[in-house]
Amino acid sequence: MTKRAVVLYSGGLDSTTCLAMAKAEGFEPHAMSFAYGQRHGIELEAARENASAMGAEQHLLVEIDLRKIGGSALTAGIDVPKEGVGGGIPVTYVPARNTIFLSFALGWAEVLGAFDIFIGVNALDYSGYPDCRPEYIAAFETLANLATRAAVEGTGRYRIHAPLIGLTKAEIIRKGVSLGVDYSRTHSCYDPSPDGLACGRCDSCRLRLKGFSEAGMADPARYVVTDKE
Amino acid sequence: MTKRAVVLYSGGLDSTTCLAMAKAEGFEPHAMSFAYGQRHGIELEAARENASAMGAEQHLLVEIDLRKIGGSALTAGIDVPKEGVGGGIPVTYVPARNTIFLSFALGWAEVLGAFDIFIGVNALDYSGYPDCRPEYIAAFETLANLATRAAVEGTGRYRIHAPLIGLTKAEIIRKGVSLGVDYSRTHSCYDPSPDGLACGRCDSCRLRLKGFSEAGMADPARYVVTDKE
Repeated sequence: MTKRAVVLYSGGLDSTTCLAMAKAEGFEPHAMSFAYGQRHGIELEAARENASAMGAEQHLLVEIDLRKIGGSALTAGIDVPKEGVGGGIPVTYVPARNTIFLSFALGWAEVLGAFDIFIGVNALDYSGYPDCRPEYIAAFETLANLATRAAVEGTGRYRIHAPLIGLTKAEIIRKGVSLGVDYSRTHSCYDPSPDGLACGRCDSCRLRLKGFSEAGMADPARYVVTDKE
Repeated sequence: MTKRAVVLYSGGLDSTTCLAMAKAEGFEPHAMSFAYGQRHGIELEAARENASAMGAEQHLLVEIDLRKIGGSALTAGIDVPKEGVGGGIPVTYVPARNTIFLSFALGWAEVLGAFDIFIGVNALDYSGYPDCRPEYIAAFETLANLATRAAVEGTGRYRIHAPLIGLTKAEIIRKGVSLGVDYSRTHSCYDPSPDGLACGRCDSCRLRLKGFSEAGMADPARYVVTDKE
């Protein structure tokens, strides 16, 4: 029997590559997305369509209102910075977001009888978020193996897979292309135009454009401004 | 300045005692409750009223739909067992619930600038849930100190307080009474009647009644059946 895996899936470049990698490793991917009060629903629409195109067994959309907590440009009406990727943790950091996402993934994994959870974090070409680091992922895996029914009953061991964590953005893109990912269907922009064009200037767009540039490829996404180097 | 603390608060016996203890320790309590698709909203109404009566600075209700994940008698329409507290993990276990609750508490703590989170789990007179054990709480504290902005910036260290974890239910009740908790305002039943009377037969009612009995007190809660020993 194919082993089930829960794949955290935003519909963006990283998580789409991560989904393709889970499938290539022989898992049956169950994709999980969150409507968490982010500024736009475009990435969720893309996630819904793309999850099935990428061969996910099912796609679960969970609604959680992180706006009540606030504290981030992505949820609290603070302007998304466009001046370039700087030092430190930017205002787009959403407090405890990956911990919340992984917790839901763990709950769903328990119900599905899955012991493998995929998350598309990477710690090289990234925004400096604390919850993207390898030591954080390792700590969540330890937690998962204490938090759950299986931990008490000894029926299995959870693994948190972060296959992109040591890859550059260019390496992620090359890997995805080799697995047949259509990046024109992935959305990465933090602040797209009303008709869904990427801004080209937020951290997420800049990291993506830099990745395609370093991979020697053109980004098939549609941008408002064409400052592709 | 009084230090802020986030207190996970269901309105039940344990979390109400926990809130009173946080306040007695000198913290400014910020109470957080979840509407998670549990079978009844009675405990949430009680939580809202009681949080302010207990001196919480504010009360945040977060809606999350755990019914989409399912896997528990409390969220998935499975009957709540009434035969008594047995061995093993019962069907009322909600997959990853405390991990999800603590994750949201961590996010809110980051925004509030709080480094203390209180959770009213106990590991003696309890239902055998894996996410109520001391090693689980310790693992979440480790995670919290890797997951967050403060972990990277070195501005503080999170503490997960579980002050009830080593107490019997009778000890919890005595402690709460000494701190002025009015237990007639707390709701513990998994399956109350439509007008809010406790069933007296689910695990939660049985543990509560046993606690009051061992503490030599009458439970001021209102029950459908009067099988108080």
